[in-house]
Amino acid sequence: MQDYAQQVLEGSPRAAARLISWLEDEDERALDVMERLYPHTGRAYIVGITGSPGAGKSTLTDKLTFALRRQGLTVGIIAVDPSSPFTGGAVLGDRVRMSRLSTDPGVFIRSMATRGFLGGLAKATGEVVKVLDAFGKDVIVIETVGVGQDEVDIIRLADTTCLVLVPGLGDTIQSMKAGVMEIADIFVINKADRPGADQLYAEVTTRVEQDAHLKERAWTPPVVRTVAVEDQGVDRLLEAVHDHRRFLEDSGALEDKRRRRAREETLQMIHGELFRRIRDRLTADGELEALVDEIAAKRRSPYRVMREVIGRWLKE
Amino acid sequence: MQDYAQQVLEGSPRAAARLISWLEDEDERALDVMERLYPHTGRAYIVGITGSPGAGKSTLTDKLTFALRRQGLTVGIIAVDPSSPFTGGAVLGDRVRMSRLSTDPGVFIRSMATRGFLGGLAKATGEVVKVLDAFGKDVIVIETVGVGQDEVDIIRLADTTCLVLVPGLGDTIQSMKAGVMEIADIFVINKADRPGADQLYAEVTTRVEQDAHLKERAWTPPVVRTVAVEDQGVDRLLEAVHDHRRFLEDSGALEDKRRRRAREETLQMIHGELFRRIRDRLTADGELEALVDEIAAKRRSPYRVMREVIGRWLKE
Repeated sequence: MQDYAQQVLEGSPRAAARLISWLEDEDERALDVMERLYPHTGRAYIVGITGSPGAGKSTLTDKLTFALRRQGLTVGIIAVDPSSPFTGGAVLGDRVRMSRLSTDPGVFIRSMATRGFLGGLAKATGEVVKVLDAFGKDVIVIETVGVGQDEVDIIRLADTTCLVLVPGLGDTIQSMKAGVMEIADIFVINKADRPGADQLYAEVTTRVEQDAHLKERAWTPPVVRTVAVEDQGVDRLLEAVHDHRRFLEDSGALEDKRRRRAREETLQMIHGELFRRIRDRLTADGELEALVDEIAAKRRSPYRVMREVIGRWLKE
Repeated sequence: MQDYAQQVLEGSPRAAARLISWLEDEDERALDVMERLYPHTGRAYIVGITGSPGAGKSTLTDKLTFALRRQGLTVGIIAVDPSSPFTGGAVLGDRVRMSRLSTDPGVFIRSMATRGFLGGLAKATGEVVKVLDAFGKDVIVIETVGVGQDEVDIIRLADTTCLVLVPGLGDTIQSMKAGVMEIADIFVINKADRPGADQLYAEVTTRVEQDAHLKERAWTPPVVRTVAVEDQGVDRLLEAVHDHRRFLEDSGALEDKRRRRAREETLQMIHGELFRRIRDRLTADGELEALVDEIAAKRRSPYRVMREVIGRWLKE
């Protein structure tokens, strides 16, 4: 066990990959390694890239990574695809294009598309972030599809979140549900050479300014135009990321953010572990099946069974 | 308390609506009412309608509901939208069109789009199904957007699941992730008057037959063509639903399905409630904040805290 933690800390990509696989499989061996790695986390800066499928997030992530590398920073990329099988799959497909990046030892790429029974993709992603952090990556980019609840949970792991919008995809401010504006620290208008880009830019800028005025937020999200495939505007985006980082650090907001995340994460861990133990206990001696027989026959309600089991197990 | 349960059983829509709001808010008052209602559940038949946004699921649900009503059956509709703010919102918008249905006392409509911190939309939907069941609805239709993990969890609540595909939406069999074919008890090719419908029909039919051959499933999902807006094919779809129901009842599969669901549900309830109690205890006296301070300062790891907390509260 000690070896895996040590190897990750020394920068072995193979050890990191193995550990991540354990995390995905909920293999218990991961727990001890993660516990040993934990004191070495908290150094990496975490950037989230989100937006509709087709917004060009993968290309933007690639270009941003090249720009970070030019600044001498190492990068971990986590591409997460929790989306519907109807719209999804794009992230993983796009990863193929990243071969140029994947030969760079300063870049570590991981795709995540599965999701366990409970605990979920957000939890697993949070663990992978910690691995890459302990592994020594300076910046970790989390790329997700869309902004559903899963994605929102995942994107909360980021220190700076870039929301990528594209003209002509129906990505109007009006179409966004409440709360989506709030997750963006930086707005990116990608494919800014397309028709409708100026209008989208104006619309987002106006809305951001109104919002900043209304809420008196200390940080007004900049709106950055990019044409990722042609590497246009990517340096400006990176500058905006660095600006936001400085703002968070100087204002103490970064510390607050990370504290909230530690709180959430601790609760989630307790939540997940509780389930594992309950399931194991109830199934070990066939008790669950006996209870389900009673419930299915309507002799007892699941609500009553719940109270009984908890009364039996929970210390007062 | 007794009154609410009684009122729901007597068919008061107002009592049902109130109870559902309590469930959504995780109001503790719901628990006693649900316990009293439980023996009166298990009578309704549950139909799931899922597919891409834009596949016409709402219209199909409406027409199916009218068809069920013509057969003298009462209907509960639960429209669930856990999807991205970029693609979603359609379900709720479409509900406006249902005014003709909503004046019919034999139909009860509920939209669900929010999601709690933990426990999730699937659990809440399962509870609402039980309310409408006890409320006396003969058939409950659950309509969800897409087939992400949330949707899969929700659609597992259904006895018969209809997967709605549409030509020209990229809904090809090839684009489906593993496991999506398996959730469909009935395939619906909606907007079957559009170009590409015949090809999609042929493709799905071929795949279903191959699949049935390979897996020797006792039920081969029929492929039904509909043009929901013009009410075409809806009676055939309803027939297919009744066929599947008879198959499940005659083969004993319905009982198995519902037993599995009771098992899952019981585990989820115990887990959810146990977590709630431990979280309440941790937050009541500020202990959680003290622990998070330690974790944020890297003096302790969340993994160790998790083990300590669980060890302290859970009896051996």
